[in-house]
Amino acid sequence: MTKLNWGMIGGGAGSQIGPTHRISAGLDGHFLLCAGAFDIDPDRGKAFAGSLGVSADRAYGDWREMLAAESARDDRLDLVTIATPNATHYEISRAFLEAGFNVLCEKPLTMTANEAREIVEITKESGKVCAVNYGYSGYPLVRQMRAMIANGDLGKIRLIKAEFAHGFHADAEEADNPRVRWRYDPAQAGTSAVFADAGIHAFHMACFVSGQTPTELSADFASLVGDRQLEDDAMINFHFNGGAVCRLWTSAVAVGRMHGLTLQVFGEKGGLSWQQQHPEQLHWTPLNGRTQILERGDSDLSEQAVRASRIPIGHAEGMPVAFANIYMDLADVLNAQRTGAKPDPMALDFPQAEDGYWSMRAIEAAASSAKANGAWTKL
Amino acid sequence: MTKLNWGMIGGGAGSQIGPTHRISAGLDGHFLLCAGAFDIDPDRGKAFAGSLGVSADRAYGDWREMLAAESARDDRLDLVTIATPNATHYEISRAFLEAGFNVLCEKPLTMTANEAREIVEITKESGKVCAVNYGYSGYPLVRQMRAMIANGDLGKIRLIKAEFAHGFHADAEEADNPRVRWRYDPAQAGTSAVFADAGIHAFHMACFVSGQTPTELSADFASLVGDRQLEDDAMINFHFNGGAVCRLWTSAVAVGRMHGLTLQVFGEKGGLSWQQQHPEQLHWTPLNGRTQILERGDSDLSEQAVRASRIPIGHAEGMPVAFANIYMDLADVLNAQRTGAKPDPMALDFPQAEDGYWSMRAIEAAASSAKANGAWTKL
Amino acid sequence: MTKLNWGMIGGGAGSQIGPTHRISAGLDGHFLLCAGAFDIDPDRGKAFAGSLGVSADRAYGDWREMLAAESARDDRLDLVTIATPNATHYEISRAFLEAGFNVLCEKPLTMTANEAREIVEITKESGKVCAVNYGYSGYPLVRQMRAMIANGDLGKIRLIKAEFAHGFHADAEEADNPRVRWRYDPAQAGTSAVFADAGIHAFHMACFVSGQTPTELSADFASLVGDRQLEDDAMINFHFNGGAVCRLWTSAVAVGRMHGLTLQVFGEKGGLSWQQQHPEQLHWTPLNGRTQILERGDSDLSEQAVRASRIPIGHAEGMPVAFANIYMDLADVLNAQRTGAKPDPMALDFPQAEDGYWSMRAIEAAASSAKANGAWTKL
Amino acid sequence: MTKLNWGMIGGGAGSQIGPTHRISAGLDGHFLLCAGAFDIDPDRGKAFAGSLGVSADRAYGDWREMLAAESARDDRLDLVTIATPNATHYEISRAFLEAGFNVLCEKPLTMTANEAREIVEITKESGKVCAVNYGYSGYPLVRQMRAMIANGDLGKIRLIKAEFAHGFHADAEEADNPRVRWRYDPAQAGTSAVFADAGIHAFHMACFVSGQTPTELSADFASLVGDRQLEDDAMINFHFNGGAVCRLWTSAVAVGRMHGLTLQVFGEKGGLSWQQQHPEQLHWTPLNGRTQILERGDSDLSEQAVRASRIPIGHAEGMPVAFANIYMDLADVLNAQRTGAKPDPMALDFPQAEDGYWSMRAIEAAASSAKANGAWTKL
Repeated sequence: MTKLNWGMIGGGAGSQIGPTHRISAGLDGHFLLCAGAFDIDPDRGKAFAGSLGVSADRAYGDWREMLAAESARDDRLDLVTIATPNATHYEISRAFLEAGFNVLCEKPLTMTANEAREIVEITKESGKVCAVNYGYSGYPLVRQMRAMIANGDLGKIRLIKAEFAHGFHADAEEADNPRVRWRYDPAQAGTSAVFADAGIHAFHMACFVSGQTPTELSADFASLVGDRQLEDDAMINFHFNGGAVCRLWTSAVAVGRMHGLTLQVFGEKGGLSWQQQHPEQLHWTPLNGRTQILERGDSDLSEQAVRASRIPIGHAEGMPVAFANIYMDLADVLNAQRTGAKPDPMALDFPQAEDGYWSMRAIEAAASSAKANGAWTKL
Repeated sequence: MTKLNWGMIGGGAGSQIGPTHRISAGLDGHFLLCAGAFDIDPDRGKAFAGSLGVSADRAYGDWREMLAAESARDDRLDLVTIATPNATHYEISRAFLEAGFNVLCEKPLTMTANEAREIVEITKESGKVCAVNYGYSGYPLVRQMRAMIANGDLGKIRLIKAEFAHGFHADAEEADNPRVRWRYDPAQAGTSAVFADAGIHAFHMACFVSGQTPTELSADFASLVGDRQLEDDAMINFHFNGGAVCRLWTSAVAVGRMHGLTLQVFGEKGGLSWQQQHPEQLHWTPLNGRTQILERGDSDLSEQAVRASRIPIGHAEGMPVAFANIYMDLADVLNAQRTGAKPDPMALDFPQAEDGYWSMRAIEAAASSAKANGAWTKL
Repeated sequence: MTKLNWGMIGGGAGSQIGPTHRISAGLDGHFLLCAGAFDIDPDRGKAFAGSLGVSADRAYGDWREMLAAESARDDRLDLVTIATPNATHYEISRAFLEAGFNVLCEKPLTMTANEAREIVEITKESGKVCAVNYGYSGYPLVRQMRAMIANGDLGKIRLIKAEFAHGFHADAEEADNPRVRWRYDPAQAGTSAVFADAGIHAFHMACFVSGQTPTELSADFASLVGDRQLEDDAMINFHFNGGAVCRLWTSAVAVGRMHGLTLQVFGEKGGLSWQQQHPEQLHWTPLNGRTQILERGDSDLSEQAVRASRIPIGHAEGMPVAFANIYMDLADVLNAQRTGAKPDPMALDFPQAEDGYWSMRAIEAAASSAKANGAWTKL
Repeated sequence: MTKLNWGMIGGGAGSQIGPTHRISAGLDGHFLLCAGAFDIDPDRGKAFAGSLGVSADRAYGDWREMLAAESARDDRLDLVTIATPNATHYEISRAFLEAGFNVLCEKPLTMTANEAREIVEITKESGKVCAVNYGYSGYPLVRQMRAMIANGDLGKIRLIKAEFAHGFHADAEEADNPRVRWRYDPAQAGTSAVFADAGIHAFHMACFVSGQTPTELSADFASLVGDRQLEDDAMINFHFNGGAVCRLWTSAVAVGRMHGLTLQVFGEKGGLSWQQQHPEQLHWTPLNGRTQILERGDSDLSEQAVRASRIPIGHAEGMPVAFANIYMDLADVLNAQRTGAKPDPMALDFPQAEDGYWSMRAIEAAASSAKANGAWTKL
């Protein structure tokens, strides 16, 4: 298929997430990076664009300049990835969607649920795509979990246990380091720190695999290092609309944990267990049966998992390939958009504005519940 | 040393916990089983006693008969293990303590915190020992955790993450099986099911390794199978008196989990992680350092862990040996009692009436909090 | 059942294996330790016997004294465990068997295959039992492997991969330590060091689970530390009489390995994988199927595994319990001997003189092959 | 930097390795795929080229046509990847090298050691690069092993234990499937099957991390399924020129193993253990010390490992990223070639013609030794 024209905003020199996007988008070769406003400093951004092979006329000083110029071109960008600081996501996403561009926004989509609701509406009106980068949902075996649950293999889901814990903000002596400090400052980070930053991925995963959304939650936030105003550890209980209880733990003080993203789902007919640390294996225990190990790459997996898999069994695909599945989905959908065809229904599993909206609602409700000593709070 | 005279109440034919006690007490050869009232049915109990080599004159029809007869003997029992149904623990423990016997009671020590408080008092007055069988605390590496924390290796403890989850009550079709049903019937089980039965071990471990006790808690109970009145899944947040937050999950519907008892402790200076499934390894991550694997049996462990270890490194000791450490501690203490010597201070780490009391308080507070939608409840 | 009278030779103060025997024999309570010659120093041995509760008249100064006195008693020992230095095993086993005692000899049974052949013959003539302590074969899941293979679940066995590797003799500075040095001295250790000491367990396991014996082998021995004359690392390829190839690695220089005993068996219809480090799980992969995890304690295991299991699922039983299964088998067989009944056929799986014989043949053939640059050597 | 012009031969529709190359080369964006002869069928190859966005004038019917046309262009290819059937590698690599192209050849580089020696010579004369795709050496933690060993952290290397085992050719009923059968047919596969195909990766890894090459070997080949003429299981012992013993097992009948590539290295001062199944962790045990877990992405790793790492710690990078490191190295070297600069010395660690040569020598020697019943054979 013809390459899709791709642009980026943010993600320049020194960015951690920028290279991950370029690796993931580049991996399948569907996207050609042909425009960008990579940096808050216009000159540095243009130089960086050059270093990536972007031609000078499409290397922009800022996103407004990029929006104006790209809107006027015939060879319009098929997709704009937004990887700027969180507080700017709403404004930029909104502007590009209103101008008729497809957008992939880094999470969080916005800083409030109301803003996210607006983006959902604007997206609907625009007929364009607004993806949000909850990239862990691209792992083939996470999609396998979703497929098995949708297929009824687990029966009614009773319980979801989700974790995203690390220890990289545990050093009290590092707490004043600006790179860390802003995350726990309400003025910059909003109402939640570690749940909004890390735990929200586990939340998205719980919704994604179960196909359910929360109706209410009770949250306990703890600030365990120095005088942090926002939480560096949180435990949240959810009731989901399909009847599942979800228990989610997230932490930034769990020394020895390496972004331990884990997901266990227990239903009437069996249980599933997956951990990002070993993403190639999924443990499935049918009720009263033996635990089975499902291997990524095996031919007897669901068609969703097979589609999301590129490399022979026994060779770890890794997180960049999981992210690449989001870009692969987008390529399918954008190509269908170009040609007027229906996209592959399996390509519609990528996280979208609606997911960004639910995330913001969960963050707001959790912060509110935590302030009220864990009172159950409706979403 | 001379063998200690040992008797059992309960734990007869068909009991699961009875053999474990005999294996654990027998393992080091400190105890000689010489009396017992093993069964609710006197004849069956006496026959069972005979099968264990107990002489006919000390094979009793019930505990009252045993109490009377043994109280009158010169070669008194040094220790009485109580492994009867939960509701009888209080009465029997109390009677034997008051008669001047040392007691090892299966958990729970009592059915209420008030009863447990009485047992604590009676024990103090008697000058005898009342142990409670939170046997997992006998694992050498659990004692290593306690020793490292007491030694300040982790600095101030910030967070404890404890789990005890299994899936053996997940089958809705089995929910009416009498063997399962009574556990979820308030008339027989009291105010809590899975927390009182399984999770309480994780609670004891959290207190044991941290050296702290809870000041308040917030509990969420869920009944996920059929029409159970008591919880088969629970999440509890604690505040501990040394400043630690403790998050404890317990479940009986987690299909695929095999009594997964795990304990993670995170402090200012590092984190520890241990799981009963692989009890011979303890992961220790110093802040900003690499994770190290401490092996049970290694000579560089704490003296508490070395003392609790019998078998060369690389050979799993297992749970019966962990339980045997409780009996080994008791043998030390009872021998000191006999001779008037001071016992080895390290022998005093076995779980005692005080631990049984804290467990009952936690169960009552958790049940109360759960009923009040998770309201924070003082202990 | 009545307790069996048990005596020990060797295994006194400072012995590593002595306590393991007492723990394992004591665990089920079938055996009563009532006689012993525990030490090369008669006085120290008698004192040690006293510390174990052995009465003074059966605390012996040496094994000859013990043989004479015990032969004359009416309450004869039902079993004599021999845990003396290797070079004495043959003489002592022989003498006790010829006097009509049942024997459990620590491995190696003898120093040569010819001696072992004699013991096999003497045992047959005596009608008594001669067990050899390849205790790892007592693990329930190892017996499960044997049962599944005997049952044809794997079809014809093609390949066995066995390992027993540790790093406890890797320190060149420790090589002259007498505790280590004798093991690599042909005058004291014979023709093989690490294979005869450690690897031989893996060899026994390969034979035990497959039900096959070797017909020829090719061995590569390496001496990797200092000027050792005997091997501290070995790789041996076997051809087994049922058509299986067996590849066995053993090492004493594998720093970081903790007695890593592992066994993988591959047949026409599937593969099995077990490791002593995590002895409670057995991985079974049917051909073209998913890997299943068999848990020790599960009710759907073979009757052999169920019989060898004491503790509820999810609680590691450990190596002492595996060893205790050897003693449990012996108790069954010796009780049948007493009563003239047929023992439970499942009780006959304990390692016997014949196994000791095959081990000595394998050691001699391996040493011979290694000297001949790995020439294939018949057994 | 400017993109490098890249072409492929082979790797078209239905190829397994073709997509892996495109994913890995595409991932960092250094290479632009601008020419190719993708298929033995010219039309199908040209169509496939079009589907990848290759312009019609550089979509070739076969490699000879491609060689002629590309040799004449000013915008010459910077790199040609050869992913054709094994028997053609020598001829094509040779032709392109002689015409002054840089080459990345899939393994094996040739079908004989003599041919490989020629390619080494031709490469030297040409001044160009000839890489061979032993891509597993691109894993950051494999490079960490190499760096630690080069740095002397392990002291003198005593022993290397390498494995590459799978069970994907274990089904006797599948043995006649043409997709499998050719691999065991000497006419098509040469003198070795599973060692040449799979085990050779483990061989390269052993050489790569140790910095040593073999001086002699002894091999045992087994054909365990049906009437295969070539081996489907092999055990090889090597002596390396730096004094290390290397023991290598490879299998295609190990049901339940998923391409289990593992590497353990034991030296005077410690041991390293790595397994491809969990490529993000490296276990390092200093002599007489505790095992430490080195995490990919940690900042305290060697500069080689840091350079080869793209994604934050705790997120598996996977095999495509490991392969991408080979392309990253090549990009560094080819850019230096363009500009006349010295390349980063760390970029020279990618596998080269010399590695392909040693592999062929090892295969020939192993096949020869196996035929001679494992006779030690010089390389």
